Amino acid sequence: MKEEIATTLASVGEFPLIREFFQPLRLEGVAGVVAGIGDDAAVLAVPRTQQLLATVDALIEGIHFSATDDPFLLGQKALRVNLSDIAAMGGRPNWYLLSVGLPGDTPSQWLAEFTRGLRACGERYGVTIVGGNTTGSSSGRTIHVTMFGLVGQGRALSRGGAEVGDRIFVTGTVGDATLGLAARQGRLTGLDEADQRYLEGRLDLPEPQVALGVALADAAAVRGVIDVSDGLVADLGHICEASGKGARVEVGRIPLSEAARRLVLRDPGLMRRILSGGEDYELLFTVAPGAVGMVRTLGERIGVPVTEIGEIVAGSEVEVLGLDGERVVVEQGGWRHF
Amino acid sequence: MKEEIATTLASVGEFPLIREFFQPLRLEGVAGVVAGIGDDAAVLAVPRTQQLLATVDALIEGIHFSATDDPFLLGQKALRVNLSDIAAMGGRPNWYLLSVGLPGDTPSQWLAEFTRGLRACGERYGVTIVGGNTTGSSSGRTIHVTMFGLVGQGRALSRGGAEVGDRIFVTGTVGDATLGLAARQGRLTGLDEADQRYLEGRLDLPEPQVALGVALADAAAVRGVIDVSDGLVADLGHICEASGKGARVEVGRIPLSEAARRLVLRDPGLMRRILSGGEDYELLFTVAPGAVGMVRTLGERIGVPVTEIGEIVAGSEVEVLGLDGERVVVEQGGWRHF
Repeated sequence: MKEEIATTLASVGEFPLIREFFQPLRLEGVAGVVAGIGDDAAVLAVPRTQQLLATVDALIEGIHFSATDDPFLLGQKALRVNLSDIAAMGGRPNWYLLSVGLPGDTPSQWLAEFTRGLRACGERYGVTIVGGNTTGSSSGRTIHVTMFGLVGQGRALSRGGAEVGDRIFVTGTVGDATLGLAARQGRLTGLDEADQRYLEGRLDLPEPQVALGVALADAAAVRGVIDVSDGLVADLGHICEASGKGARVEVGRIPLSEAARRLVLRDPGLMRRILSGGEDYELLFTVAPGAVGMVRTLGERIGVPVTEIGEIVAGSEVEVLGLDGERVVVEQGGWRHF
Repeated sequence: MKEEIATTLASVGEFPLIREFFQPLRLEGVAGVVAGIGDDAAVLAVPRTQQLLATVDALIEGIHFSATDDPFLLGQKALRVNLSDIAAMGGRPNWYLLSVGLPGDTPSQWLAEFTRGLRACGERYGVTIVGGNTTGSSSGRTIHVTMFGLVGQGRALSRGGAEVGDRIFVTGTVGDATLGLAARQGRLTGLDEADQRYLEGRLDLPEPQVALGVALADAAAVRGVIDVSDGLVADLGHICEASGKGARVEVGRIPLSEAARRLVLRDPGLMRRILSGGEDYELLFTVAPGAVGMVRTLGERIGVPVTEIGEIVAGSEVEVLGLDGERVVVEQGGWRHF
């Protein structure tokens, strides 16, 4: 937080901006960076035994965040949503490219906090910037992160391959992020302060399940894998589509946080929102019946709760059974981008 | 151009959008794509003898293009500016990720034409989509492309390493894109129709110098290399900064197209704009005196004109000498993003 930081990006200029804000995102000691930020492209070395994972995700002002959101949290989230994609493939994340479009009137202080968030998250997960792009924007702030990871040859997890009879598992708890968003928008009543803080925290700082993803890939124990970004039912639908199968999920088995449980007790209708809301960034995966014990052991060893919520069946639909055994109708769309 | 294409993206929805517009961007037969578009991340195989190049660039509505620009050309340009970065590193481009933010009221026809441009360019240069991200946008259209390439171990070109006495070369002709932009904006007078079309064509469809970049890397004949995106003087400045050297360039040796030459004859003041204007996407590089002949031969073999325009000198400045041998003052900023 230097005193001489200028007020807006326009007054700083592009190249000082790169020097002051983006070059410090380099983390020493990450393997494989032959040449990082500062040339026309990064030069990266992929070990002979490994395959490369690459994914891109975006946070757009007015869609995913507002100008008044905490930029320190936003910087962390920009990496975490991408880390979650690498986790869902069973990879170890390592490098990222950052492409931002920023209006000239963006306060430098905003960028300082945003990059502080990137740095904090990079240090936590051991990922370093290797390049990027900075451009003006005539409208809002846009943040695109390309994340890389490594996975052993032929070990990458995928959405496809779920078999009839596979048990469906999910990590952590489901629905907190969508409830956190509703709480922030004032659309939930009677929520106590601690619960509100907890739910919003889950929205702002999702926990990518990197360690479990790596363990699952190493153990070759799972088949259909995805991270819950679009919503539990929608993402389970993606697994079903990629695998050519259907799924049956029991509402009563879906793991909820204490905060979510208290809300649902008061308003059971919220369960629909929990089933269709996105952005939890938990791992959703299917397991052959014989490997269920091993997956439970892995979860315990890593300290990540894993909960069985249903089963892969023949067909192509995601069937959700309520507490009474009746089918629940869930809006299939999940998170809608348009 | 199917008749049933809906009018706007909002009415199509995200997943049909991906199926209809983005999945067809897959090109068969590109090596190394273990799993492409359609999972949480792409899985890519980098051959043992190669290193990976990765770069990202963005085109933002209101900054780099307007809503009325031809989307077919825009799709091509979105890849070409990134291909140029891979060329400047001496790499063979192969894969890309596409991340777009599009307002819901974007006409489907626009996206159809835009992706047709991507496809045409992908086929021409042998690069395939391997993944991406589609999101709404509350403001303009934004296009971020992450481009990958491969280069032999330790063979990547870089901006640094220019030595005093190195000759400075540039491919093709300089300044056409900036004159094309000025022409389109009605800021050039007395331009005939053919010249206007030529200059605007150079702005809309830059020619990334991929073949020459690969040949230069294979020949290990050059040291400081960059593509001219910010402007000739600004990009030469980047080489100088990375190499800890200065440069001297002679205006009289700078290669101009016939159209640019005619304009400069009428208004010699345009030379300043040519020196500082960006987006030519030619290669600018320095060559040890003993390798000049080899570089000329490479250019002839590949069919790319290469022109010697000056010399690397001690110091840290880019000195531009006019026709009279006097120093010309050029706005150092080049392309300003803010």
